[in-house]
Amino acid sequence: MNVLGLIVEYNPFHNGHLYHLNSAKKIVSPDYTVAVMSGNFVQRGEPAIINKFSRTETALNMGIDIVFELPFVYATQSAGTFANGSIGVLERTNVVTDIVFGSESSNIEYLKKISNVLITQKKEYTNLLKYYLKKGLSFPNARKEALKKFFDNDTDIEKIVEKSNDILGIEYLNNLNYYNSKIIPHTIQRHGSDYNDSEFKGKLSSATAIRKLIFENKISKIENSVPKKTLEILKREISKGNGPINLEKMREIILYKLRLSEREDITDILDIKEGLDKRFIEYSKRSKDINDLLKKVKSKRFTYTRVKRSMLNILFDLKDYEYKKYAEYGPQYLRVLGFNKKGQKLLNIIKKKSKYPIITTPSQYYQIYKKLIKDLKNEDKKYDSIPEIFLEQIKYDFKASNIYSLLYQNKISSSYEEDMIKKVIML
Amino acid sequence: MNVLGLIVEYNPFHNGHLYHLNSAKKIVSPDYTVAVMSGNFVQRGEPAIINKFSRTETALNMGIDIVFELPFVYATQSAGTFANGSIGVLERTNVVTDIVFGSESSNIEYLKKISNVLITQKKEYTNLLKYYLKKGLSFPNARKEALKKFFDNDTDIEKIVEKSNDILGIEYLNNLNYYNSKIIPHTIQRHGSDYNDSEFKGKLSSATAIRKLIFENKISKIENSVPKKTLEILKREISKGNGPINLEKMREIILYKLRLSEREDITDILDIKEGLDKRFIEYSKRSKDINDLLKKVKSKRFTYTRVKRSMLNILFDLKDYEYKKYAEYGPQYLRVLGFNKKGQKLLNIIKKKSKYPIITTPSQYYQIYKKLIKDLKNEDKKYDSIPEIFLEQIKYDFKASNIYSLLYQNKISSSYEEDMIKKVIML
Repeated sequence: MNVLGLIVEYNPFHNGHLYHLNSAKKIVSPDYTVAVMSGNFVQRGEPAIINKFSRTETALNMGIDIVFELPFVYATQSAGTFANGSIGVLERTNVVTDIVFGSESSNIEYLKKISNVLITQKKEYTNLLKYYLKKGLSFPNARKEALKKFFDNDTDIEKIVEKSNDILGIEYLNNLNYYNSKIIPHTIQRHGSDYNDSEFKGKLSSATAIRKLIFENKISKIENSVPKKTLEILKREISKGNGPINLEKMREIILYKLRLSEREDITDILDIKEGLDKRFIEYSKRSKDINDLLKKVKSKRFTYTRVKRSMLNILFDLKDYEYKKYAEYGPQYLRVLGFNKKGQKLLNIIKKKSKYPIITTPSQYYQIYKKLIKDLKNEDKKYDSIPEIFLEQIKYDFKASNIYSLLYQNKISSSYEEDMIKKVIML
Repeated sequence: MNVLGLIVEYNPFHNGHLYHLNSAKKIVSPDYTVAVMSGNFVQRGEPAIINKFSRTETALNMGIDIVFELPFVYATQSAGTFANGSIGVLERTNVVTDIVFGSESSNIEYLKKISNVLITQKKEYTNLLKYYLKKGLSFPNARKEALKKFFDNDTDIEKIVEKSNDILGIEYLNNLNYYNSKIIPHTIQRHGSDYNDSEFKGKLSSATAIRKLIFENKISKIENSVPKKTLEILKREISKGNGPINLEKMREIILYKLRLSEREDITDILDIKEGLDKRFIEYSKRSKDINDLLKKVKSKRFTYTRVKRSMLNILFDLKDYEYKKYAEYGPQYLRVLGFNKKGQKLLNIIKKKSKYPIITTPSQYYQIYKKLIKDLKNEDKKYDSIPEIFLEQIKYDFKASNIYSLLYQNKISSSYEEDMIKKVIML
């Protein structure tokens, strides 16, 4: 049985995603295709343009059989943590056989070579890394330079460590190794626009360019860049007043949180170091909106995305010591956002094969937690989940949803606990 | 030298306030008149309709010589704490000789009688208090019932302990005693509308009714209820996009704060007890706005105002143990919001006579803090301030201003630290 696993955000689902999905299916010829998808907040350190339930609906319509939610604590972090969570979810289904990811180089052998150096931490490499860190480079940049030097300025390698999807791909490989996974990785050459490209390029436009048009109230212009279903669901959610959502909608809550904080309140927050706490607090008082704040806080040392991610960490009070646990133990549950008929069959198989609780009714989270505690005493333990970490992680997902819904223009929609009330999406 | 002290909010300054000011002057024949005024947040547990600087400007125009800011930590609390802070500021000028406050009964002898019972805590009274507390009444209600019983259902006393301004008056008297003050208290019969009366009554309308009209965009209708200067300044601030402000403008930040909180995060917040923490957290997830939330959290036990005040305590993370210090030591500085020419003379006298730092340039707060620390070692101590409490209290004032400005429609105005940038108002 071949089960294809994809790691996605679908923010929103566009033609490039469809191309990727179909190409991946050609490579793997899967019996089933599942995806692990970011929830209401995505890896750019921003809220998604529409909520996770609507994005799940589109994904199921486009041919994904089950959509799992990437827990919030992994979704908005840097490549390594994002990969840790998403590979963790796919691996822990205990049925996924292959993953396919887009990559600029599409050279899996080179990616494996690099991943191998990072995993084995060869002395020659770690010395180079230390050297560049001492020179004041940020960790990602120091790693990039160390790898370049390690591979003796091999031009192909050099290109790989420059590109965001290649870097993410390397982290997927690192984490397949971390989880001791038998999943086979494949890559696809990325086509069309670059992920961050804000220029609209017609049929194969980037998600960034598509979101830009939606915010400019030019949704009809994206017609050729997204499947019909995406357009339909986007329009529906917007007409309900549940979107489009962006970071600027969080202006008041972000500035409130920062303006109220003292340095000691946020120094133990994940990724807050080297004076970033002071920059956030001081500039928050003098910024008129989030865009203004980000421009002020950003520096040579802190990239725009890094600043946004750490800002969300402050907003959600995600501590450094919590993150260490999450990185070590991985995701503690498989939250199902939706499935189709085929997916339902596979879900029954997963329920038997996985050592982690499958969550289709999140409102029962506390009963599941109690069950996990009880299970600890069983000699034939059914679950590998650590109950306390399970509880912490899922509560973050709920909080993320409850904060996200606050951003809806429609205040009625914002007064439901969506995770408690919305049923799992069935197609 | 007679110096009249008034305790005010001027939210906004209306004909009733002018009547009170003029009547008070008739009673005291003062050489100078000073006021201690709530800053950007008021005793109803809400933000003021326009900012403290604009309200100061009106006050100076109407005949107040110096406006002091009531520190935030006292301004939004129940009658006892509000009185502790405001009497504290007036007493610590060391020049105020008389205060005049409005009261429903206007019977100073009766008020003193009641205050005396509360101060001396006679056994007969405390036993009654305990009895009503045990019966499940809230503290203010138990106190009311105990006082009624203690005075043997004297009908006049009974009326007094029912009325909000009489109760506040009793707290003023209690605190004059607490500070060992020589200030002479006087009362004036309150005229016109009741403080909470939302019905518009023309020339002598309540502040509540006036604010209501402003929010309904009928500002021209208040023309006969407020002095010209009030109207002019209100219109100016509204046209700048700096108002009108109300609690609903805090929707996102309040719901964000509550939806993110766990019970243990807020159990040590001032006034959060008897399940109020749980009510706030749970209902926040199911409320569409602040009005909706307040209706849900309110109960027989917790009045509307009590709920609003404790909500602000959560928002500003004001802990119970901090409050105890503030109640014990009183306000640690005299922050001057504005003065006129006459006021300047008096300010020079106060600078000599007061044992507390006079703040006219808040941006120098840290230098003042350092000065207070240094002063501790002097044999001839100039100041009675406790440096750490000074620092805590003034930082709350700054935070209150920085959160308040977030509520302006004009985002540029919201990006100044007004306390640092606005000069003291001089008329």
